[in-house]
Amino acid sequence: MGYNLLKGKRGVIFGALNEQSIAWKVAVKAVEEGATITLSNTAMAMRMGQTGELAKQLNCEVIAADATVVEDLEQVFVKSQEVLGGKIDFVLHSIGMSPNVRKGREYDDLDYNFYAKTLDISAVSFHKMMQVAKKLDAIAEGGSILALTHIAAQRIFAGYNDMADAKSTLESIARGFGYVYGRDKNVRVNTISQSPTPTTAGSGIGGMQSFLSFADKMSPLGNANADECADYCIVMFSDLTRKVTMQNLFHDGGFSTTGLTSAIVDEFINKNA
Amino acid sequence: MGYNLLKGKRGVIFGALNEQSIAWKVAVKAVEEGATITLSNTAMAMRMGQTGELAKQLNCEVIAADATVVEDLEQVFVKSQEVLGGKIDFVLHSIGMSPNVRKGREYDDLDYNFYAKTLDISAVSFHKMMQVAKKLDAIAEGGSILALTHIAAQRIFAGYNDMADAKSTLESIARGFGYVYGRDKNVRVNTISQSPTPTTAGSGIGGMQSFLSFADKMSPLGNANADECADYCIVMFSDLTRKVTMQNLFHDGGFSTTGLTSAIVDEFINKNA
Amino acid sequence: MGYNLLKGKRGVIFGALNEQSIAWKVAVKAVEEGATITLSNTAMAMRMGQTGELAKQLNCEVIAADATVVEDLEQVFVKSQEVLGGKIDFVLHSIGMSPNVRKGREYDDLDYNFYAKTLDISAVSFHKMMQVAKKLDAIAEGGSILALTHIAAQRIFAGYNDMADAKSTLESIARGFGYVYGRDKNVRVNTISQSPTPTTAGSGIGGMQSFLSFADKMSPLGNANADECADYCIVMFSDLTRKVTMQNLFHDGGFSTTGLTSAIVDEFINKNA
Amino acid sequence: MGYNLLKGKRGVIFGALNEQSIAWKVAVKAVEEGATITLSNTAMAMRMGQTGELAKQLNCEVIAADATVVEDLEQVFVKSQEVLGGKIDFVLHSIGMSPNVRKGREYDDLDYNFYAKTLDISAVSFHKMMQVAKKLDAIAEGGSILALTHIAAQRIFAGYNDMADAKSTLESIARGFGYVYGRDKNVRVNTISQSPTPTTAGSGIGGMQSFLSFADKMSPLGNANADECADYCIVMFSDLTRKVTMQNLFHDGGFSTTGLTSAIVDEFINKNA
Repeated sequence: MGYNLLKGKRGVIFGALNEQSIAWKVAVKAVEEGATITLSNTAMAMRMGQTGELAKQLNCEVIAADATVVEDLEQVFVKSQEVLGGKIDFVLHSIGMSPNVRKGREYDDLDYNFYAKTLDISAVSFHKMMQVAKKLDAIAEGGSILALTHIAAQRIFAGYNDMADAKSTLESIARGFGYVYGRDKNVRVNTISQSPTPTTAGSGIGGMQSFLSFADKMSPLGNANADECADYCIVMFSDLTRKVTMQNLFHDGGFSTTGLTSAIVDEFINKNA
Repeated sequence: MGYNLLKGKRGVIFGALNEQSIAWKVAVKAVEEGATITLSNTAMAMRMGQTGELAKQLNCEVIAADATVVEDLEQVFVKSQEVLGGKIDFVLHSIGMSPNVRKGREYDDLDYNFYAKTLDISAVSFHKMMQVAKKLDAIAEGGSILALTHIAAQRIFAGYNDMADAKSTLESIARGFGYVYGRDKNVRVNTISQSPTPTTAGSGIGGMQSFLSFADKMSPLGNANADECADYCIVMFSDLTRKVTMQNLFHDGGFSTTGLTSAIVDEFINKNA
Repeated sequence: MGYNLLKGKRGVIFGALNEQSIAWKVAVKAVEEGATITLSNTAMAMRMGQTGELAKQLNCEVIAADATVVEDLEQVFVKSQEVLGGKIDFVLHSIGMSPNVRKGREYDDLDYNFYAKTLDISAVSFHKMMQVAKKLDAIAEGGSILALTHIAAQRIFAGYNDMADAKSTLESIARGFGYVYGRDKNVRVNTISQSPTPTTAGSGIGGMQSFLSFADKMSPLGNANADECADYCIVMFSDLTRKVTMQNLFHDGGFSTTGLTSAIVDEFINKNA
Repeated sequence: MGYNLLKGKRGVIFGALNEQSIAWKVAVKAVEEGATITLSNTAMAMRMGQTGELAKQLNCEVIAADATVVEDLEQVFVKSQEVLGGKIDFVLHSIGMSPNVRKGREYDDLDYNFYAKTLDISAVSFHKMMQVAKKLDAIAEGGSILALTHIAAQRIFAGYNDMADAKSTLESIARGFGYVYGRDKNVRVNTISQSPTPTTAGSGIGGMQSFLSFADKMSPLGNANADECADYCIVMFSDLTRKVTMQNLFHDGGFSTTGLTSAIVDEFINKNA
């Protein structure tokens, strides 16, 4: 049951792996809100995850694509327009991976081939997605494009490693492409900077559990979860936010503007005094 | 026709003066979205503006109050709960005035009694509003409180004068009270930083017309208007943004993250070359 | 022994109370670097503190002034120019006090007369200082004006209370007056956002000890101390930073751009796991 | 004639091409301030520029290196320590180039091989430099590492293109490596965000002349020039800024915190009214 916020809109969701994924929740809610969508993920992710089941559940198509490959992205936007019967109104980029993190390379011992991959997969793919879409004129006037990011783009978190650089690059791409896409086609581009979230992707980050607990106590409203993040994505796809663009929107229970809470003082500092 | 985003919610709207007012538009849309509301404005503003007509149109009550007077604010929250039949779910603060601007005092020739009034009316009133509401336990769990602000809080605009300081103070109050209200009552507090808007309040600012035109050309999507701002306020009052708090949200067509557009280069710089 | 960075420059230092004060250290170093200075503090502070001793040590004059009183500030700038023999090259504002903090009023139970005093003493005094100086044309071309601030202006720290709002206002004043003073007289205005520091002023803030320890472990270089802060002030007064203006400069060992350190994880989070 | 601010310190300066280069000015001033240095640049730049002359003038060695090649960077740090007789105290990274800009590719028509080069040359080289230095333990306790950046990392400027993304990545690397280098070795890492400057590198950016003029009128103190930037670099290398780290420092005459000046209103907006 929804509000019909996306009635008649067409969307493409990248990165729904399994039920924990934020992209999965966005897909489900977008359909509840009246949208028709396609899903896209890598062939590998489709084998390992449950993207196919989600497609069945939502009665939508999955288009396999490596988001670092321009031709694959062209396929996604060409086919999505065919399947959905028109230009695309919204796009979600929920893609990120660091081989350095996976292989346990510390930030002062990075492998630079891995580093290039981290940037390509987690950030440049967002540029490719938009450049392809704009060249195909695949996004409808007034459309909305979103990527998910993390506050590590602004502040360093031990263990987040080169994903921090990828998120900084990603947010810069959102501003840069937001400028040209806004100017030329009235399309808006934003990022949502989400609380740490216990997804499959997040679980690779070092010390994730510590960080989840710390962030929760450092956030006046507690951590935002994946469901709540999906709600915020819906709002950013709707017609009620048409003049919001080139922004990084914190969705984090207040974490980003909090320096020290009484919960942290009580539970961590005083206990150790 | 709305989405029922505020179905069953109760709101208090401060600062609806006339049809140009953002607060006026928010009031109209909140009712369209299913809310019941009360309006509040100063006795003076009620005589000079059309708040009464709006109340008639929306079939709601107006409660006269000077938002710098704690007792008046108590009245607003006590009566609003009576009239609306329960705790308040959302509040809009759209109040600002600088006697220095009105009297044409430049920023290096301020009258300090006026300055204290600028801060009291435009910023401290927001703290008073929330402190009163919290002491009365007048806001429902999960409630949402908003104030309107301007990018002059971050960057200096010739002519904006001491309102810049008031907006900085206002945004700080949003963070500060957002922390305690979030921690204690799960209530969120945010500010929306709106494009320059040709309202009665805005018209007092020096060189408003120049700034409107400059900002429009400096924003990839153009300036956001009052109607669009009202849409964004509705979204922030809805249940879809429950973990967004202590944020300053730019609603400005991209102005805040743009440094120089080709429109500015073409229309201003090259013409004068 | 210094570098002669301020050779021949004249300065006014507000707020040196005792040897712990940052302003005290700045005064000492400014003289070491070749400046001649005057000190200013309230009559009350002069009785309670050791400003007189510092003046003796540095062989300079103290001019009593309540920095919230325009006439007192006029005296300071008139006399300082007489005593020092010319226009002033640099000014330090190190003034802050919250009666709400002193009286233990929480942020959701503020006394609004106290609040007005917090703002007047800790923020508006900075505007008054500059407006007075500009009207008297007391600052030399290329002069440098600094105020000390704290990251509570950007993020909420439990216990920092209404001083956070004062610091936000102060930083806004630095930008606003920096614009007019830069444009008209080539004078720059900045704020230094210093690590929590165990001064007499700081000791009034609730939970100061916890915060000192937390900030130290959250800063890759540890907290910056008062001596180091004085070094940074000297640099900002020197001719080597003449195009830096309207900036808030973090001097904090990296605290402001750090989200979570391994020291915090090890010492607080894992111990409690 | 200097202040002896860098007496006894050893530095490595990357990117001095010719007399217009900021790095050139930094090299000259560093020596004036008592430092001994080595220079590094690519073999190509050494042929095209005057790095050799500068080396002669300063009586220092040039070590050819492609800053994207780890082995070359190892050479620079190994040889510099040999030549200078000890660990390195400061490093300047003044390197940036975008093949997309050079070839006139617009931001929505990027070549992705070029894009990878833009990032590698202009941003990742900074990481490589620090990772190499740290592995060799080549930087002295308390050392200072700087890179030059631009406000395009925060706001979009028409024509700045993919260099904006490179600068965002560069600033993120400064924070990320600043954290580990600060924690482990007490070394600080910062970026200076400089006004547009008419250097050889800057001249490639589209519409540079328009932007120089616009920025100058939008900055209360006017644009900062290369000499002034060099002064600021010296300050950041000195012992007077030892607790400043992971910061992006605007050196721009106030541009970054100014939204609209009366100069812009008068010269551009009103003329076209």
